Amino acid sequence: MALHTTTLELSTQGDSDIIDITHRVQEELLNSPLSDGLVTVFVPGSTGGVITLEFEPGLVHDLQEAFERWAPRDHDYRHDRAWRDGNGHAHVRASLIGPSLSIPFKERKLILGTWQQIAFVDFDNRPRRRVLILQIMGE
Amino acid sequence: MALHTTTLELSTQGDSDIIDITHRVQEELLNSPLSDGLVTVFVPGSTGGVITLEFEPGLVHDLQEAFERWAPRDHDYRHDRAWRDGNGHAHVRASLIGPSLSIPFKERKLILGTWQQIAFVDFDNRPRRRVLILQIMGE
Amino acid sequence: MALHTTTLELSTQGDSDIIDITHRVQEELLNSPLSDGLVTVFVPGSTGGVITLEFEPGLVHDLQEAFERWAPRDHDYRHDRAWRDGNGHAHVRASLIGPSLSIPFKERKLILGTWQQIAFVDFDNRPRRRVLILQIMGE
Repeated sequence: MALHTTTLELSTQGDSDIIDITHRVQEELLNSPLSDGLVTVFVPGSTGGVITLEFEPGLVHDLQEAFERWAPRDHDYRHDRAWRDGNGHAHVRASLIGPSLSIPFKERKLILGTWQQIAFVDFDNRPRRRVLILQIMGE
Repeated sequence: MALHTTTLELSTQGDSDIIDITHRVQEELLNSPLSDGLVTVFVPGSTGGVITLEFEPGLVHDLQEAFERWAPRDHDYRHDRAWRDGNGHAHVRASLIGPSLSIPFKERKLILGTWQQIAFVDFDNRPRRRVLILQIMGE
Repeated sequence: MALHTTTLELSTQGDSDIIDITHRVQEELLNSPLSDGLVTVFVPGSTGGVITLEFEPGLVHDLQEAFERWAPRDHDYRHDRAWRDGNGHAHVRASLIGPSLSIPFKERKLILGTWQQIAFVDFDNRPRRRVLILQIMGE
């Protein structure tokens, strides 16, 4: 058993931008010495999350609409009253979705459904540069 | 430290069917050579999720009702306009709940609360055969 | 690679009390022999959850308000009809948020964003004594 940690940098548009990172996670697996195990994608930050979804434009839209129902942008958040950065909804959505996701891999390949992709969601209200942590454990 | 990967097959009714898989995960633990560690239950697919709950009929009903509030079946999903399979709500619910859950175990026994069970939720709109991944890591 | 399991005891007020446990998780890391890996915080119970958030009073309030929108306390839960303990909303919220969170660490330090803390949420409707599981894996 061994541990391999790496990072994944990306630029986002913010505003619940959903970015398919499947191929980049898969690429990092191939760069690691491990063949079987678990990769954990972690967002070090309080306005981003990791999900899986069938990555197609219809569902990307449907999910963004659901985020708006679950934590509306124009709600009166106390966070915004105090900090005036207007991203209270981003924080609430990020805590709901969660910053961490673990996916198994076998023979150097992620085990995912045929129509299942891994995505980073940037809930913040402005474009961001993000650095995600990939922690790969296995043998 | 070692890794043990196995699968768990099940038949579901779909329509947010909630299936208690605790005893089957526990059984796979006993079939593995490991005594202490972490078991990750993973759904390879974009219309299923893993949760824990007190598995009793009242709560199963309450959760199914909550899924309907969080992502109503009859909402106009763009996914459905494009693909005509009528399961847009299933995809949105699955991304919300998440496909992955990690539970610790000790002396070959899952560490769970007295009234806490592990369940697979099939959000799809029809009965399905499902294969879940169990990845067991530990010593 | 090695495994280190420990527990974390805390007293809560219940009613969606959100308790910052970052420093206590970090402390347990320093007590472990491991320097790099993954720590999993697990709630053995069906009315608690683990999240990350920017832990400041405004957001703590905003999240508690969101929990109330997602699963209102005064909704008619079947769980409450059967068990008369009045905590149906707590169970539904806990299944939504989830009992498990994995965070990477490096050189004996949690990898978190500058304004990102780890918190336990006690959704139950009364003060509780809680014992969380910390499972630390790495090298």
